[in-house]
Amino acid sequence: MTTQVIVLNGGSSSGKSGIVRCLQAVLPGAWLAFGTDTFVDALPASMRAGDGGIEFAADGEVVVGAEFRELEAAWIEGIAAMARAGARVVVDEVFLGGADSQARWRKALDGFGVLWVGVRCDAAVATGREVARGDRVAGMAAAQAELVHQGVTYDLEVDTTHAESMECARIIAAHVG
Amino acid sequence: MTTQVIVLNGGSSSGKSGIVRCLQAVLPGAWLAFGTDTFVDALPASMRAGDGGIEFAADGEVVVGAEFRELEAAWIEGIAAMARAGARVVVDEVFLGGADSQARWRKALDGFGVLWVGVRCDAAVATGREVARGDRVAGMAAAQAELVHQGVTYDLEVDTTHAESMECARIIAAHVG
Amino acid sequence: MTTQVIVLNGGSSSGKSGIVRCLQAVLPGAWLAFGTDTFVDALPASMRAGDGGIEFAADGEVVVGAEFRELEAAWIEGIAAMARAGARVVVDEVFLGGADSQARWRKALDGFGVLWVGVRCDAAVATGREVARGDRVAGMAAAQAELVHQGVTYDLEVDTTHAESMECARIIAAHVG
Amino acid sequence: MTTQVIVLNGGSSSGKSGIVRCLQAVLPGAWLAFGTDTFVDALPASMRAGDGGIEFAADGEVVVGAEFRELEAAWIEGIAAMARAGARVVVDEVFLGGADSQARWRKALDGFGVLWVGVRCDAAVATGREVARGDRVAGMAAAQAELVHQGVTYDLEVDTTHAESMECARIIAAHVG
Repeated sequence: MTTQVIVLNGGSSSGKSGIVRCLQAVLPGAWLAFGTDTFVDALPASMRAGDGGIEFAADGEVVVGAEFRELEAAWIEGIAAMARAGARVVVDEVFLGGADSQARWRKALDGFGVLWVGVRCDAAVATGREVARGDRVAGMAAAQAELVHQGVTYDLEVDTTHAESMECARIIAAHVG
Repeated sequence: MTTQVIVLNGGSSSGKSGIVRCLQAVLPGAWLAFGTDTFVDALPASMRAGDGGIEFAADGEVVVGAEFRELEAAWIEGIAAMARAGARVVVDEVFLGGADSQARWRKALDGFGVLWVGVRCDAAVATGREVARGDRVAGMAAAQAELVHQGVTYDLEVDTTHAESMECARIIAAHVG
Repeated sequence: MTTQVIVLNGGSSSGKSGIVRCLQAVLPGAWLAFGTDTFVDALPASMRAGDGGIEFAADGEVVVGAEFRELEAAWIEGIAAMARAGARVVVDEVFLGGADSQARWRKALDGFGVLWVGVRCDAAVATGREVARGDRVAGMAAAQAELVHQGVTYDLEVDTTHAESMECARIIAAHVG
Repeated sequence: MTTQVIVLNGGSSSGKSGIVRCLQAVLPGAWLAFGTDTFVDALPASMRAGDGGIEFAADGEVVVGAEFRELEAAWIEGIAAMARAGARVVVDEVFLGGADSQARWRKALDGFGVLWVGVRCDAAVATGREVARGDRVAGMAAAQAELVHQGVTYDLEVDTTHAESMECARIIAAHVG
């Protein structure tokens, strides 16, 4: 089946966004790129700071509420509809719920050619990159490095610990059918 | 019919984004906010600089290509699907094609309660705000101030020339059914 | 004396940055623009989150520590040295310490032609703009609206409550000697 | 002599900013961080788009004018004055003029303990990172990779081709006297 959606899953500061931009540059044709950040930016400011939305604990843990989950379900349906309308889409995700998160996406994307990609990065290296970026809550990289992959199954995994975004993008592109 | 989608249309630097954030703050419940900027950010970098995508002429005119229109159609279907899934959505748009642009959205949002809002701003004032922002191509505000409203019909119009974003948001919120 | 430094002082979301960009556009010659934001961005991330640096209280109050004051003194000397080297500079400041803050700048800029400009904005209007911007700690606009002007003396005051950034910039530019 | 200023020089996308943030995190005490980007952001918008300022050629080459050089000289004097006032400063630079650029800084920083650090990155790798960042003019990384080091002498060189920002920062920190 022709790949129409690529879902990248990885922890904060694992290098997903960089891979996405490289994928858009190396894949034939035009692919739209959306991600957790697109969705979070679409939320009311009050939900980005608690209030049924997202809370960042002092240790970098991220907790989301019920209202967040409802809106997220609608967001996922929206991405699926873009694919149904013919767009090719790269999704950059953080499966905080591991297998449950993947199940939500899998159900919505049923019937499309989806390439599931795990983006790994050693927790210590991701933590260093979190400091280097300077725009993320400290501790998220370490808290999510393993958590987001629990129970998730992939067609392909890349590891940014020792590989550049562009290298990872080329590996992924070679698996796009 | 209950309002489920609010579509704001206005030229560059007319103050749409500010109104959207205020709407999210004053409307009861959680509304997702998306806009032309969300869509443009999702495009490959090459399309944001010509190549079948967007071109910014020296006079601030914006020209879009066929590939842009196809992806945009999918994007619009995605927003409609989010509404179908139960989310309330504010869309911040720039109808470069005037009535044609509105027709594309109207068709996709058929069956939902939509509040169409025109966001006006005097061209000279919008041009001053463009300079004050410092992050937009010079001339877009003036080029779009009238253009985007040609042939478009609204339930409501606000004018930011002499009114604050918050005032406009309260006026719009009062019309949400 | 020829004006070589323009110091704008006003609370958060009073519209200083917009006025600065307009000033750079309308003033003859090239003026460098620096501000509190430039200095804060230059601090280590740890100081931007407490640790002898800046703390944002829940009510929007901003508290700074001793180490912050020492580095700020060096920063002010740096701006003065740029003026001494011949550059014309616009400084965008938030005098959290009122008259004491002004005294620090006045001492460092002794001997230069300085235009002191107060940027006023009604607290309620600034609060609405804070919501519209969506990137500032809620409450700062209201907390600072009056506070930063206490005991400060100006050559000129502008009020953005009912005037555009560009209008204010033209008024200020007319006073530049 | 105690190190009071660290000057990092490297091409676009060689990883300087990440190293600077890591340095601020690992060095004892508080260091201010400034760079070419700080200076360019301080320029009038018109100078960032030609007009005696900066021009980005289609091949990524950057050309600066005479007015840029005058303001830059004042900027460098400003940084030196901050050091004179007691601040420790990390400067993140792009020596487009190679040895001439270094000479300008060397003269202004005469008398201070300065650690000169070259930040190298393989041109092909830097080009990939430029794509991954998505916010830089394409071609700058390749155009500057060798150019900025011509005739420049260092106390220390790091290479980000195979080393993380944090690793490079620790190496540099170990040389700070």
